[in-house]
Amino acid sequence: MPQAHSSVPPSDASAAPSPKAGSARHLRIAIFGFGTVGSSVARILVESKPQGLELTHVFNRKVARKRVTWAPASIVWSEDADAVLASDVDVIVELAGGLDPAGSWVRRALEAGKSVVTANKKLIAYHGIDLERLAAAKGGHLKYGAAVAGGIPVIPGLEQGMAGDRIERLEGILNGTCNFILSKMEEGAEYAAVLAEAQAKGYAEADPTEDVGGFDARAKLAILMRLALRVQVEPEEIVPRSITLITPVDFSYARDLGCTIRQVSRAQQVEGRIAAAVGPMLVALRSPLAWSQGTENMVIASGHYGGDVVFSGHGAGGHPTAVAVVSDLLALAHGSRRVEIPSAPASLGDEFEVPHYIRFLVKDRPGIVAAITTALAKEQINIRAIVQKAGYPSDALPFVVTVEPCKSSALKRALAHIRSMDCMLVEPLDLQMLE
Amino acid sequence: MPQAHSSVPPSDASAAPSPKAGSARHLRIAIFGFGTVGSSVARILVESKPQGLELTHVFNRKVARKRVTWAPASIVWSEDADAVLASDVDVIVELAGGLDPAGSWVRRALEAGKSVVTANKKLIAYHGIDLERLAAAKGGHLKYGAAVAGGIPVIPGLEQGMAGDRIERLEGILNGTCNFILSKMEEGAEYAAVLAEAQAKGYAEADPTEDVGGFDARAKLAILMRLALRVQVEPEEIVPRSITLITPVDFSYARDLGCTIRQVSRAQQVEGRIAAAVGPMLVALRSPLAWSQGTENMVIASGHYGGDVVFSGHGAGGHPTAVAVVSDLLALAHGSRRVEIPSAPASLGDEFEVPHYIRFLVKDRPGIVAAITTALAKEQINIRAIVQKAGYPSDALPFVVTVEPCKSSALKRALAHIRSMDCMLVEPLDLQMLE
Repeated sequence: MPQAHSSVPPSDASAAPSPKAGSARHLRIAIFGFGTVGSSVARILVESKPQGLELTHVFNRKVARKRVTWAPASIVWSEDADAVLASDVDVIVELAGGLDPAGSWVRRALEAGKSVVTANKKLIAYHGIDLERLAAAKGGHLKYGAAVAGGIPVIPGLEQGMAGDRIERLEGILNGTCNFILSKMEEGAEYAAVLAEAQAKGYAEADPTEDVGGFDARAKLAILMRLALRVQVEPEEIVPRSITLITPVDFSYARDLGCTIRQVSRAQQVEGRIAAAVGPMLVALRSPLAWSQGTENMVIASGHYGGDVVFSGHGAGGHPTAVAVVSDLLALAHGSRRVEIPSAPASLGDEFEVPHYIRFLVKDRPGIVAAITTALAKEQINIRAIVQKAGYPSDALPFVVTVEPCKSSALKRALAHIRSMDCMLVEPLDLQMLE
Repeated sequence: MPQAHSSVPPSDASAAPSPKAGSARHLRIAIFGFGTVGSSVARILVESKPQGLELTHVFNRKVARKRVTWAPASIVWSEDADAVLASDVDVIVELAGGLDPAGSWVRRALEAGKSVVTANKKLIAYHGIDLERLAAAKGGHLKYGAAVAGGIPVIPGLEQGMAGDRIERLEGILNGTCNFILSKMEEGAEYAAVLAEAQAKGYAEADPTEDVGGFDARAKLAILMRLALRVQVEPEEIVPRSITLITPVDFSYARDLGCTIRQVSRAQQVEGRIAAAVGPMLVALRSPLAWSQGTENMVIASGHYGGDVVFSGHGAGGHPTAVAVVSDLLALAHGSRRVEIPSAPASLGDEFEVPHYIRFLVKDRPGIVAAITTALAKEQINIRAIVQKAGYPSDALPFVVTVEPCKSSALKRALAHIRSMDCMLVEPLDLQMLE
């Protein structure tokens, strides 16, 4: 008969012989960086009181202005990082971001045998392997579930639930700012206006380059490539393309092609050859990548055995990111070890072979299409469609050529030739089309 | 400078002081039940050679016919469960399914201090709490990532990545057979024809009741409720509704309402009051639940802090389910402990208050709508729309009434009155509409 109506008292669980398994270990926690995410982490710890997690210290510059009334009086508010690192805290939650000084705090905490939970994608993308090794050597642990896709459990999903597969392909929407901007532009807005709105809402920085230029996304992609494709690549090897090149005209042409435009981060490994790219791309309206609206994130991991798995949700924001941080803290308290997915250094030695969308803006005159198609033909690139919508002025005429799957390098050579034509008013824009 | 180009040798990782952390422990594995999933698990273990996992035994009735040529000669093929349980294997992978004898094998393995990995949703739904307690007491571990949504890492995602949130609502497509049938019916097929196709493809059993009746899905929902809502409910408390009640007419009316029909499993907890339901429901075409095609599964977990997280992918089939099993084995080998999410016994004490779709099939005569609307009004149920498409015969006329959010119990009372009308050719069909 069913006997599901019985609870597991913590004392029972602790009967397990493994020293750290069973009921949660008590952890004293210091938050480094009390901004939006830091204060959300504190809020969840105070409100939900997860078993075993005690917030004891908050470090921030000029910490007095950060003090909140709803936190327990026992918390030490400090602007002395050294003192907090030297204290009896078990875990540092690093939410300051950037390589420095965050990196040195993390390193010193791990050196001292403490564990670290961080949302710092840059630090993990560039130094994750070293820091994990340091943690293992000193008996601490490094968790960074919040570093990619915030509240969406992509990292635990890959480490714990898909480790048994061989992931061959990753496609993701990893930057909420770009997704907010592009999904608003899809509805008809201009880039500058949406960027201003994103800045007003706190979704974009005053200098948005890190986000719109693709640098944030490529750091996250490098982390996912390590966990999913099991390769360690230098983030700099992935040359991102900026979304600032996209204009309303591109959304109009994309829609005619049954597509929209998203900032996509993608990587694949085929027979040991690795390709990766970050930038605006055309995605089919019926594809999951087109579903993401606003600041949502999404990751599609394609396994050799299990096929496509889609993760989607809120990739950024204080509360969702804080959920990932608190979940990592709980995993530490419960003694949940990482499934160490072996990875090896690798270089990007391959290119995607996909269809491309190429948008030209020309001062119209006879012979332009002939010249373009000749240049493409020289590189053995087949044209799929030429689309020119009515209603644009002939002295600034946008039109689009789509081509069958080809290597970016071949297309680049053709475009180097095409761009020198005197009728070209701007650099031709070429975007990968995901199929 | 970036230093990502260095690998972590296993010897380094094993420097961690925690006894079972670090490089993978070697596990001797016995598969109980060598059907589609069992042979996929063996295939992945043989092909991918994951560190630390050695398949040593296969148990099956009449095992001779199961022997495969691609497996290592060292494997012991046995039809003697007792002998395999008494051997030196570390982990039993239970893939026989059902409560018995699978349950007794699992219990005896755990009693002997072995660990168990299982895909058996029924066993975990009914006896999971007991078995986890037994595992903890004897020093073994029980993992069941494959029991819900096969290859989609929903269980690791909830346990490891969302434990820091407070999940308030779950909606899922948890049965691939029903999703295959309903998504084919959406395209115009008849139930009987699609069921026959599903049976021919091996997606449905000869007796499909467990799937189409909702019993399989409710076991999975009960498991997810424990992990996500942290409540232990008797699976029997969830009364499922069969998808066999759905006709092509319903898809036609659903589409007019901007919806389609899916077998949905849902549960929520609002201020301690718990509601759960399994059965065919109307879902908006723009909702993620409508994206699932074929045998795909999907789970949407709505957190108080992190908002909605969507997981989607292949919920069934040999390979996807085997990925979940192998991932659990890797987690055991790496000493990854479960994050023990506390749960408490609970009863379903609440109802969803949602709009309903009610389809009538009547022999037309004057006064029917008046009688129906009067009966609904008596229960304070507001009508949202009355839809009657042209082209149906008046002696077997289907039409639809949709009503504003109301409790199922109120609607049930109204329908008890309505169904006794002599013009009703069949029982009125009422479906929840998800918004």
